[in-house]
Amino acid sequence: MTMKPRQILDMNAFDPKSGTVPEESLLARRQRNFGAASVLFYRRPLELCRGSGSWVEAADGTRYLDFYNNVPSVGHGHPRVRAAVARQWEEININSRYLHPLTEQYLERLKETLPSEIDNVVMACSGSEANDLALRVAQRVSGGTGFVVTETAYHGNTAAATAISPASFRQGNALPAHVQAIPAPGSDTYGDDVAGGFAAAVDQAIERLRQAGHEPAALICDSVFSSDGVFTDPAGFLAPAVRKMRAQGGLYIADEVQPGFARTGEAFWGFARHGVTPDIVTMGKPMGNGYPMAGMATRSLSLEALCEDVGYFNTFGGTPVAAAAGLAVLEVIEDEGLQSNALRVGNHLLQCLKALAEQDGRIAAPRGVGLFLGLDIRDPRDGSPAPERAADLINALQARGVLIGAAGPFGHTLKLRPPLCVTREEADLFVERLVQALSTVQ
Amino acid sequence: MTMKPRQILDMNAFDPKSGTVPEESLLARRQRNFGAASVLFYRRPLELCRGSGSWVEAADGTRYLDFYNNVPSVGHGHPRVRAAVARQWEEININSRYLHPLTEQYLERLKETLPSEIDNVVMACSGSEANDLALRVAQRVSGGTGFVVTETAYHGNTAAATAISPASFRQGNALPAHVQAIPAPGSDTYGDDVAGGFAAAVDQAIERLRQAGHEPAALICDSVFSSDGVFTDPAGFLAPAVRKMRAQGGLYIADEVQPGFARTGEAFWGFARHGVTPDIVTMGKPMGNGYPMAGMATRSLSLEALCEDVGYFNTFGGTPVAAAAGLAVLEVIEDEGLQSNALRVGNHLLQCLKALAEQDGRIAAPRGVGLFLGLDIRDPRDGSPAPERAADLINALQARGVLIGAAGPFGHTLKLRPPLCVTREEADLFVERLVQALSTVQ
Repeated sequence: MTMKPRQILDMNAFDPKSGTVPEESLLARRQRNFGAASVLFYRRPLELCRGSGSWVEAADGTRYLDFYNNVPSVGHGHPRVRAAVARQWEEININSRYLHPLTEQYLERLKETLPSEIDNVVMACSGSEANDLALRVAQRVSGGTGFVVTETAYHGNTAAATAISPASFRQGNALPAHVQAIPAPGSDTYGDDVAGGFAAAVDQAIERLRQAGHEPAALICDSVFSSDGVFTDPAGFLAPAVRKMRAQGGLYIADEVQPGFARTGEAFWGFARHGVTPDIVTMGKPMGNGYPMAGMATRSLSLEALCEDVGYFNTFGGTPVAAAAGLAVLEVIEDEGLQSNALRVGNHLLQCLKALAEQDGRIAAPRGVGLFLGLDIRDPRDGSPAPERAADLINALQARGVLIGAAGPFGHTLKLRPPLCVTREEADLFVERLVQALSTVQ
Repeated sequence: MTMKPRQILDMNAFDPKSGTVPEESLLARRQRNFGAASVLFYRRPLELCRGSGSWVEAADGTRYLDFYNNVPSVGHGHPRVRAAVARQWEEININSRYLHPLTEQYLERLKETLPSEIDNVVMACSGSEANDLALRVAQRVSGGTGFVVTETAYHGNTAAATAISPASFRQGNALPAHVQAIPAPGSDTYGDDVAGGFAAAVDQAIERLRQAGHEPAALICDSVFSSDGVFTDPAGFLAPAVRKMRAQGGLYIADEVQPGFARTGEAFWGFARHGVTPDIVTMGKPMGNGYPMAGMATRSLSLEALCEDVGYFNTFGGTPVAAAAGLAVLEVIEDEGLQSNALRVGNHLLQCLKALAEQDGRIAAPRGVGLFLGLDIRDPRDGSPAPERAADLINALQARGVLIGAAGPFGHTLKLRPPLCVTREEADLFVERLVQALSTVQ
């Protein structure tokens, strides 16, 4: 493979140098306000003004089936979550240095979904903050400083989280010495023995860490390897790698920011598929269905160790309003049967995609679990990744009223993450439009 | 001075080892869920269940005048902010990779409050995220790696922000080599020449950074030195220190997470008092009156430099809902005249505190600007800091229906930060209760 890996934030991104725009247009204002940090999807960026269930609506009235955004996970603008936030904020919204029963009620319910060993939760605002804290807990508990990550991993935007996120590095910039990256579990590197190969890669990465002067602190993995390209099979493949890391004194951090909260359908958390109990679980995006909230869960003794060195307090984390949002999300997932819906509709969708792949040589390796699916866009002649075709397809789907994104080291993987409330009919509609879009691209 | 500095998160904190609590009590549940990261105010922690304007109400029906919490800055549960959030969330709540006019409208209005050179804003979730990013921008632009901070500074909870926050370090833990702390501008060190002394201290800190192998990246200061103990006089004292840092190639980061958004009354931002233009401005806490949001503002060229190395994207930052909250806050500040109210009521309050200090030798050096005031609690015999008396006073004020907090290296400074809508009558009530509380402590 001679293709260059791409910086993940650039995938399907609008290029501000692609042409001039009227000075008073929304797009020009955006570029002036956000500057170089502006990241917009699509060659023609979308202005979205409404959302409900699995659908969003643009300013021009076009409706889009949303198979991309994994924050509004129980459905865009779910009324129960909004009502819970409004009701609680009308009463009080204050930091967690004061007691509030709703915060404890939420945490107790959240902890019921976690392994019993994981008994403390630190509430934060973003998955980045959660991972940033997890890294320090792992370093404090292990005594090590080094991390093993996958080659296209993304774990957040703080300085410490960026350092362990190869996907955020522009081409040519090397990872720092305390971070060693290994190929994603779906890479050709491991052949048929994903579990054995991945574990051996962890071992080798630990060796490289030590050569660089760093004892291992943790293996951190997104449980579905989202930005690496969505890899979930075979179930259980993570377990030997986790054992290897622990045997060398490091911890296992399950980054559940993307897979968590019932998306995988078969379980509430992505790590369950691998039969492993993490030392630390981080969570974020769908946790409040749009209300900014996140969490880092770990053993009480691990948190005690960290707090011997420094205090930790998060102003917006664990307020009664955040708890109201989070509790409503848990209740909606249960009351509307969204976990089983994710499994049912996800299985159906995966079958449809497999059938499509048999008919169209450009589509390869449909995979994933529940409503976290991936498929590769390739050149049918030699099977090589076809990121330009993937980009064309994503834009063709946009033109047909479907939002979807790319992932993987070359940006040739389509990532499917509809809301958990998506119906079988909407899944069929997606497949129908995908077939139409395929007919318009090379 | 032989007193040991205290870790700021411990000030006026509930000590979980202070006694046993019934296993099913809210307090016990809290300790089980939050673990070692639990930080609760007061010897008897408060359960708050309602808030409105400058007042909060506890579960037992007691009402408290809130002179502590600086997040609900335009008043607890301000209806316009809540309505703006509810209205926008009903329409759509989605990340900033799609365009939305409200986000640009908000940023344009926010930028009107900033120096014109500061033309880009990166939206984030927390002041910690904003400062974490600011540090990287400063390093990238300056080419240096070192920071100068004050001795009891607090700039956030991420790994990078904690490293520059001496207030977060437990006793005996040293700052990392790339961080050099200097005495706060109110310390005895500088005598009458605060401006000259503080600038000289910056110069010496830069020298120490270089000896440790770090070129200076930035001087970062909370513009009112909140956690150091609130120091705002004489106006302009920061300017020579900023010039010293710039002369040595470093930037000046104004941490406006606490002072910003009209609290100082005389200006919208705290740095204005010193006649300086920051290279980077960070903001947070009051920005959304409780909605989790923050920002880092800087020159477009500085942000471009950072983005050449890494991509930056913040899932919850700059959503239309965050913009709605932020815009409502700006509108309320303007429409309700809160900046001038902060100046007027703040001046009145400061005069009352000065009169009180003349009558009571335990109270010293009332100071500050607008509604960010501080006063020291000392031993009248020798003028030494009296943190235990300050703690007694804070708990006595709690018993009289007033919430207030401590700051400073020894925890002997009372920090006054009522909502910007506080009335003159409420300020008088505060002083009346402070006098009552003083009569009950040693």
